[in-house]
Amino acid sequence: MIKAGVIGATGYAGAELVRILDRHPRVQLEVLTTRSYKGSEFSDVYPNLKGHVSIKGEGLDTKNIVERCDLVFTALPHGHAVDIALECKKRGKKFIDIGADLRFRDADLYEKWYKIKPDFPEIMTSATYGLTELNREAISRADLVGNPGCYPTGAILALAPLLKNALVDTNSIIIDSKSGVSGAGRGLSLTSHYAEINENIKAYNIGVHRHTPEIEQELSIIAGEDVVVSFTPHLTPMTRGILTSTYAQLKKAGSTEDIIEYYREFYAEEPFIRVLPEGVLPQTKAVYASNHCDIGVVVDPRTKRVVVLSAIDNLVKGASGQAVQNMNIMLGFDEKTALDYPGIYP
Amino acid sequence: MIKAGVIGATGYAGAELVRILDRHPRVQLEVLTTRSYKGSEFSDVYPNLKGHVSIKGEGLDTKNIVERCDLVFTALPHGHAVDIALECKKRGKKFIDIGADLRFRDADLYEKWYKIKPDFPEIMTSATYGLTELNREAISRADLVGNPGCYPTGAILALAPLLKNALVDTNSIIIDSKSGVSGAGRGLSLTSHYAEINENIKAYNIGVHRHTPEIEQELSIIAGEDVVVSFTPHLTPMTRGILTSTYAQLKKAGSTEDIIEYYREFYAEEPFIRVLPEGVLPQTKAVYASNHCDIGVVVDPRTKRVVVLSAIDNLVKGASGQAVQNMNIMLGFDEKTALDYPGIYP
Amino acid sequence: MIKAGVIGATGYAGAELVRILDRHPRVQLEVLTTRSYKGSEFSDVYPNLKGHVSIKGEGLDTKNIVERCDLVFTALPHGHAVDIALECKKRGKKFIDIGADLRFRDADLYEKWYKIKPDFPEIMTSATYGLTELNREAISRADLVGNPGCYPTGAILALAPLLKNALVDTNSIIIDSKSGVSGAGRGLSLTSHYAEINENIKAYNIGVHRHTPEIEQELSIIAGEDVVVSFTPHLTPMTRGILTSTYAQLKKAGSTEDIIEYYREFYAEEPFIRVLPEGVLPQTKAVYASNHCDIGVVVDPRTKRVVVLSAIDNLVKGASGQAVQNMNIMLGFDEKTALDYPGIYP
Amino acid sequence: MIKAGVIGATGYAGAELVRILDRHPRVQLEVLTTRSYKGSEFSDVYPNLKGHVSIKGEGLDTKNIVERCDLVFTALPHGHAVDIALECKKRGKKFIDIGADLRFRDADLYEKWYKIKPDFPEIMTSATYGLTELNREAISRADLVGNPGCYPTGAILALAPLLKNALVDTNSIIIDSKSGVSGAGRGLSLTSHYAEINENIKAYNIGVHRHTPEIEQELSIIAGEDVVVSFTPHLTPMTRGILTSTYAQLKKAGSTEDIIEYYREFYAEEPFIRVLPEGVLPQTKAVYASNHCDIGVVVDPRTKRVVVLSAIDNLVKGASGQAVQNMNIMLGFDEKTALDYPGIYP
Repeated sequence: MIKAGVIGATGYAGAELVRILDRHPRVQLEVLTTRSYKGSEFSDVYPNLKGHVSIKGEGLDTKNIVERCDLVFTALPHGHAVDIALECKKRGKKFIDIGADLRFRDADLYEKWYKIKPDFPEIMTSATYGLTELNREAISRADLVGNPGCYPTGAILALAPLLKNALVDTNSIIIDSKSGVSGAGRGLSLTSHYAEINENIKAYNIGVHRHTPEIEQELSIIAGEDVVVSFTPHLTPMTRGILTSTYAQLKKAGSTEDIIEYYREFYAEEPFIRVLPEGVLPQTKAVYASNHCDIGVVVDPRTKRVVVLSAIDNLVKGASGQAVQNMNIMLGFDEKTALDYPGIYP
Repeated sequence: MIKAGVIGATGYAGAELVRILDRHPRVQLEVLTTRSYKGSEFSDVYPNLKGHVSIKGEGLDTKNIVERCDLVFTALPHGHAVDIALECKKRGKKFIDIGADLRFRDADLYEKWYKIKPDFPEIMTSATYGLTELNREAISRADLVGNPGCYPTGAILALAPLLKNALVDTNSIIIDSKSGVSGAGRGLSLTSHYAEINENIKAYNIGVHRHTPEIEQELSIIAGEDVVVSFTPHLTPMTRGILTSTYAQLKKAGSTEDIIEYYREFYAEEPFIRVLPEGVLPQTKAVYASNHCDIGVVVDPRTKRVVVLSAIDNLVKGASGQAVQNMNIMLGFDEKTALDYPGIYP
Repeated sequence: MIKAGVIGATGYAGAELVRILDRHPRVQLEVLTTRSYKGSEFSDVYPNLKGHVSIKGEGLDTKNIVERCDLVFTALPHGHAVDIALECKKRGKKFIDIGADLRFRDADLYEKWYKIKPDFPEIMTSATYGLTELNREAISRADLVGNPGCYPTGAILALAPLLKNALVDTNSIIIDSKSGVSGAGRGLSLTSHYAEINENIKAYNIGVHRHTPEIEQELSIIAGEDVVVSFTPHLTPMTRGILTSTYAQLKKAGSTEDIIEYYREFYAEEPFIRVLPEGVLPQTKAVYASNHCDIGVVVDPRTKRVVVLSAIDNLVKGASGQAVQNMNIMLGFDEKTALDYPGIYP
Repeated sequence: MIKAGVIGATGYAGAELVRILDRHPRVQLEVLTTRSYKGSEFSDVYPNLKGHVSIKGEGLDTKNIVERCDLVFTALPHGHAVDIALECKKRGKKFIDIGADLRFRDADLYEKWYKIKPDFPEIMTSATYGLTELNREAISRADLVGNPGCYPTGAILALAPLLKNALVDTNSIIIDSKSGVSGAGRGLSLTSHYAEINENIKAYNIGVHRHTPEIEQELSIIAGEDVVVSFTPHLTPMTRGILTSTYAQLKKAGSTEDIIEYYREFYAEEPFIRVLPEGVLPQTKAVYASNHCDIGVVVDPRTKRVVVLSAIDNLVKGASGQAVQNMNIMLGFDEKTALDYPGIYP
């Protein structure tokens, strides 16, 4: 049994991680930390877990926690993961950050968008970007993984086959994402207040959302050239799920079926990517509480544009499910362990 | 491997049954029938199951289906289960009806409330009522099980310890239930139309809902005397979940803690019933997509009334989860098999 | 033109009051106070009002504000209205408190439930309770009005005709209310957090909610004897609306139509009470954003209980609409002015 | 008093029209037709209108209805308005179709997208397209008006100033719209079924939605050249509202403020268009149940793209509110009559 710790366990991503790890046959939850609920049984904070997780929340004592665990997850606001990463590295423990601190290959880019000067840029940039389907090999050898953001997961998975196969103009890409509210976390804010969100849709942070450079970094690597995108996130009245609608200009004419074929090939061996047949479009409900990413493709011959849509659960494939997927790979387990469940529908 | 069939698989209860059985290690889905989607892959109807359930829907050929299966479930509107029950009985196959046809111990009661004259009243009344926690022993010996309605499951579990221990006046019971819309099924109706339900709450069928006699039948058996209740179901803007608020007059004064103690004792060995401590109340989200029933108790000393609340997922403990729980018992499996999962939160 | 001030204008009840007063032909909004948004244009806080209300929020300077206004509304947490009431009384200005401070005829009762020792109990208890339909005459002569709570409005309107006509046992009353989340206000709290509320129903404060003594006070007056009730509020996944389901034991048998006839008579002249015909039940959507209260009645002959349901919009008839209705009466305007609008449906 | 008729009054657009006309001081509702509720009081079908609209639904007798009315509205599925338009024309009555039959200036275009060969193409194309802000002058002289679709209203209002001022490449336009479910009407369908829609977002009819040619027709007129767009509608879990996110490539660099200035100028005199200041983005809740269209603009200097968003209530500015706005203009009333109300918030 592997001993795992979750730092920041009482946020939504942390709690989802706990829910998934609890059903993992080869992992034992050794420690959960929390700032707000120290000493509480975890299931007093997340009542769904009553009878399943009886462990109590602890305060954060990095050294002690890293010592007790074989692998540590952090689900914290950005700026807090690097210290823990260092401690893990020092002691030879595996580490996965669900936050943003280990996602960038260029520390300046991080500083520019996150407005924090990194103390240890070399550890930041030495981590492996944990978008499993694109980096499986590197993840299997990694000690430190920066788990992708929720929007980048949906966007990159939607666009990767187009860029890998050089099918589209790289400067034509538009990403219009619609997210459930849980992506904003459990922290109190007027933008997560029920009466403000219900029966309401709005965009936010257009062109300046911090997931933009993360998307561009990965798409540029895939394309082999600099990719700059328009990215617009929207807040929608649902708890979970991201639907990402992407638009790009095809370099040459092709049918929907032609393009889908590239997707089928690109994701042929992937257990969690479901490429939908022509005429079927993804919906967030089909992946609710599951680690799947559904992808649908439409070519519009009138505009010679391709529209690719992806649906994920932002807390699972967009955060904690993918973190467990990465853990499975890092530890040599079957990648699907504890994740091989369909969505809840309706 | 047991071979199971689901008749009426493309309604919501049927589809939830398929989702649960698909993860059951000792059951193989042999046949799914559907009236509307014959020949379709099941996952074309329920896209969450793509990659999990590839079996195709068939039309209903009772004899053939019963022959191929060891156990048959029906998830049909009332009036259609008895023929299949007969065939199962004839061939020595196990049978569980998620509909209403096998729930009554008195065929006249069924006829009175359901307006159908039963052709085979003796088979109806020979079935075992499948509220697992109250009838486990009988279920383990049963061939035919009438799975409880969703409202009765929540109401009976909330009230049983009060009646078993003769703590309340049996003519003082009021049951006020709040249900998600999936309880009305997948059939099209203005009362399940999104724009009519969203941002709306209303009661319906006050005093005349067909689950009333089912609740009274079971409560009367527990109490050892005739129990007549006021039952008011409400439709609320959510997909899953029933919160049942019950009220009863205590025969003698007692504290909340006193009454909770009766509940703890009554449900001491139950894997799916969670009796909440004083000061904690059930919420439907805590049991979302799980087979748990959460129960909370409050005594109001001002009125000498006890308020007991229960929360279930109407499609799981209120329908298909409990059906699998019963199946496990009928077949000698561990009762928790394929059901031992916490709810999805948030 | 009457000059009106709203103290606490940027909470939900305050903002709804502003929206209604803005369309009032005989009222001019003179001052809006706010703690959090001083100096902001009101429509920057409530974007729906852009182009309609351009006035800026001010800090609270009681003397100055009372001087400038003919009538002052307060929409504040309890404990803050009495000082302003005193100032209004001193200067001969009309005053309506949407909070709880002026609702009780017994200062000890207030202290017991609200845990605040009143400094000026005599001003508290000298105010008129503003449930318009029951107190119209007194309101027309009042200078100080304590506007009812949202739950009491729904509950008292549902039960008054039964008690007035002595149709039910006064110790048999159970009130089960289902409220939208806006009733909890705009203040941040985990219990108003979108992801916690969506797809969730729960009860809270069973038997100890502060609206209980207010309901009992008024029902006792109507009944002419002490009435003690069971009151259970529930939080439901919608923004606006309260559905109140009440239960009481009939003293003698009677049909649904018999009881409805008492309601029709009791509310015969009421412009905002709609007594529904037999077979029709109230729904919150039918009164969305309107000042109506819909009432439906069902007698259950099996239990000799009557079930009466009422639906209101908690922010309109349950708060700011009723406050304007009272203002209209206090000032001699047509009671329906600025309120005579149907609900928004769907 | 003008006498108005609404044909197809019991659909959502029809009912919203009735709600608005009922508060119109210069219009009397003379006749409401309905296929499903003939002989019912309108407020039995739409309970919000009880006490407001007591008129009964009639069957459709075109000649008789046109005779009795000064102006007729149709809110019917496409293919049914032309006969009524002809009758109105013959008798010199005004006519506004909320459906699609009178929106096209080219009958072949209609036939191509709607798969119906028009019997009277000349009457179709002689109607005036009723996007008020762009066609006010023509509408004031029109007898027949084709009221715009809900998506086109939001999209055209968002893009018109860009095209009028030739600020963007006309072949770069992408329109990503998010609609509430009421846009699909009251007709029963699995895609409007509560449990399928709640907690779900999906796109549909990508590149082939029938509102596409309508958008292109009007944008081409404004631009003075052929405009072909990518249009993707999405269904979202809310009842009312459309948020339209549009993307276009700027011909030359400009700041957000620069572009907003064009919008301010273009819509300077418009009572229902609210151009939001830099940094503020539209949200559907701010226009809920109102005739406003809120517009926000963001220039992304990294991509040289402009993102323009608009929010409308699909049933008001997107259908019935705009129809009344057009009626007011056709009849010489103040354009704002019966429409000058802010949205409901929260």
